[in-house]
Amino acid sequence: METEGKVIKCKAAVAWEPGKPISIEEVEVAPPKAHEVRIKIAASGVCHTDWTFLHESGGSMVPPPFPLVLGHEGAGVVESVGPGVTKLSKGDKVIPLLVAQCGQCQRCLNPKTNLCTKNWVQTQQCLLADGTSRITCRNQQVYQFIGISTFSEYTVVPEDNVTKIHPDAPLDKVCLLGCGVSTGFGAAVNTGKVEAGSTCAVFGLGAVGLAAIMGCKSADAKRIIAIDINPDKSEIAKTFGATDFVNPKDHSKPIQEVLKDLTNGGVDFALECVGNVAIVRAALEACSPAGGVCVMVGWTPKGELSLVSEDILLGKTLKGSYFGGWKSAEAVPKLVEDYMSGRILLDEFVTHTLTLDKVNEAFDLMINGKSIRTVLKM
Amino acid sequence: METEGKVIKCKAAVAWEPGKPISIEEVEVAPPKAHEVRIKIAASGVCHTDWTFLHESGGSMVPPPFPLVLGHEGAGVVESVGPGVTKLSKGDKVIPLLVAQCGQCQRCLNPKTNLCTKNWVQTQQCLLADGTSRITCRNQQVYQFIGISTFSEYTVVPEDNVTKIHPDAPLDKVCLLGCGVSTGFGAAVNTGKVEAGSTCAVFGLGAVGLAAIMGCKSADAKRIIAIDINPDKSEIAKTFGATDFVNPKDHSKPIQEVLKDLTNGGVDFALECVGNVAIVRAALEACSPAGGVCVMVGWTPKGELSLVSEDILLGKTLKGSYFGGWKSAEAVPKLVEDYMSGRILLDEFVTHTLTLDKVNEAFDLMINGKSIRTVLKM
Repeated sequence: METEGKVIKCKAAVAWEPGKPISIEEVEVAPPKAHEVRIKIAASGVCHTDWTFLHESGGSMVPPPFPLVLGHEGAGVVESVGPGVTKLSKGDKVIPLLVAQCGQCQRCLNPKTNLCTKNWVQTQQCLLADGTSRITCRNQQVYQFIGISTFSEYTVVPEDNVTKIHPDAPLDKVCLLGCGVSTGFGAAVNTGKVEAGSTCAVFGLGAVGLAAIMGCKSADAKRIIAIDINPDKSEIAKTFGATDFVNPKDHSKPIQEVLKDLTNGGVDFALECVGNVAIVRAALEACSPAGGVCVMVGWTPKGELSLVSEDILLGKTLKGSYFGGWKSAEAVPKLVEDYMSGRILLDEFVTHTLTLDKVNEAFDLMINGKSIRTVLKM
Repeated sequence: METEGKVIKCKAAVAWEPGKPISIEEVEVAPPKAHEVRIKIAASGVCHTDWTFLHESGGSMVPPPFPLVLGHEGAGVVESVGPGVTKLSKGDKVIPLLVAQCGQCQRCLNPKTNLCTKNWVQTQQCLLADGTSRITCRNQQVYQFIGISTFSEYTVVPEDNVTKIHPDAPLDKVCLLGCGVSTGFGAAVNTGKVEAGSTCAVFGLGAVGLAAIMGCKSADAKRIIAIDINPDKSEIAKTFGATDFVNPKDHSKPIQEVLKDLTNGGVDFALECVGNVAIVRAALEACSPAGGVCVMVGWTPKGELSLVSEDILLGKTLKGSYFGGWKSAEAVPKLVEDYMSGRILLDEFVTHTLTLDKVNEAFDLMINGKSIRTVLKM
């Protein structure tokens, strides 16, 4: 059946209001407008950020509008393209991007940032570039989370917010490169610029933290200390390259003191992958006074971060990045190829594979520390 | 008169208790012990940190012990050396160093830090390496500020805390390289790594801030915005390379908003040279989201620094350095030569030259914004 130019009726996981389970609904996905593409989603990772925006209104962030289709870590195939689309064609395998790379704005031309301004304001408001969405349900406009919405059989995104990947890429694995794995890996290699022979500490062993460990390992760090209050994470951390595992609950001292004792005064690189300002402080304090670098990676709700000023003043550095600092459209296809050639791991993140209608179960697995990543197949 | 090996009686400015004027006293300066040198001080700059430790017990720092001879920005000539000294000889022109560079410790071998551990703990306690001082007054041990004490005609310091400079260097100018000018200049070129063509903001136009401006200029920054609540600082800021002057009191908006408006969204580099956590926050907020870098330069009392976490998380960097990040013993002689060959300015910092007995007057000039640097001649 030819669907191009027509409204597609399909299934999507619609969040009607904050804090409530998501329900599977029939939605209508409009054809792509100019400079947009419609994607048949094959698979989507379930990221902690989806849960946060559903249950905590994004922490202290601007709460997302409802009804909303969540999901922003997906992969699929282009079903059709709108007028003026030049970068993509029907049948291309693609990954939607939570930050665009238009290649032309001042920021795209600036090697120090990946925060392309194209469509940023609108997608942060859960809309597409023209200020509307392409998804409706029961005659209501449904918002598209970060302008994406991968918890749907079909979605429409701006062409600058999608990138074409290798035609042989397995979509149920490379979907993880749409957010968590790229974020953690890039935070280590791009933002922290972890050095060979260095000592690293990674706080929080979800997909982002495990990917950060993988980044530290790929940078030839000598020692990689993985930290989590869930002892079940010890084994998998070692799979990704951790040399040590520390559970803060096993110690009476604060974790930063434990790490200083373990490392002769502090680590060279600390990566905070939880998204908690108190842990950012601990991570900074765990850094070596000799130029230690603390990277904020986990999505920390907008709020007050309190530090001991002398920590910075005497030579430590605090930094952060969005989406691992990757220039999205050019980096993601390369990361896909890195996976396909064995230079980075993806399969090991996927502990559960479920169908879309099990999205609430996927959230439960994550919140209870039972999964690293659940991939939903459409 | 040969003084080598003998106690020298001379004048020094002794602080007997916190918050009170300093008094000029006759003190006794013992001969240098092993690995120490005795220096006839020629000149000393008066730095805000001297005042802070006298009047505010160093902010929230550990209060210094009293009685105390302040002064840590000096230059002089070696009068004699203790046993085992190999790097220096009688007659050498020298600058005492507030952080050593032993060349052998782990940190000296680490290019990312200048925080040599040699003598650090003892000098921070205002003592020499053996846990005593060489200055006495009225039969009491007098503490040596940061192990130095340049507000004295003679002082004794560990050989690793002093560096030999060019024999033709004018001591009443190059003394400023012992702290303030090196700190501000290095914060821009070493710590911030200010880039050619960039936009910079420098908060606080004392000697450190003006030196930071000079550093930004030497790095070929395109625009250097100087910020102070004292309108008298506008002219001198331009002498050092500022392209703009902004007085926060002239604006109803917060200074960070004024700067964002002036610079199309934020500066590439912000250097906080006041030493105030609220201004550090403003400086960070004034940075461009496109990888802006905020450098803490002014000596901020130990205490809580509160930030908006998202500022860092989306890609800004917060860093700092002690003594401008310079490896002290090797850098200071080069900076002296940079001054002698006209590559950096020093004369322009010296607004007042007074004799040692006018030290309280020098503090008054500084606190009332009437001086940039007063140099005390012995």
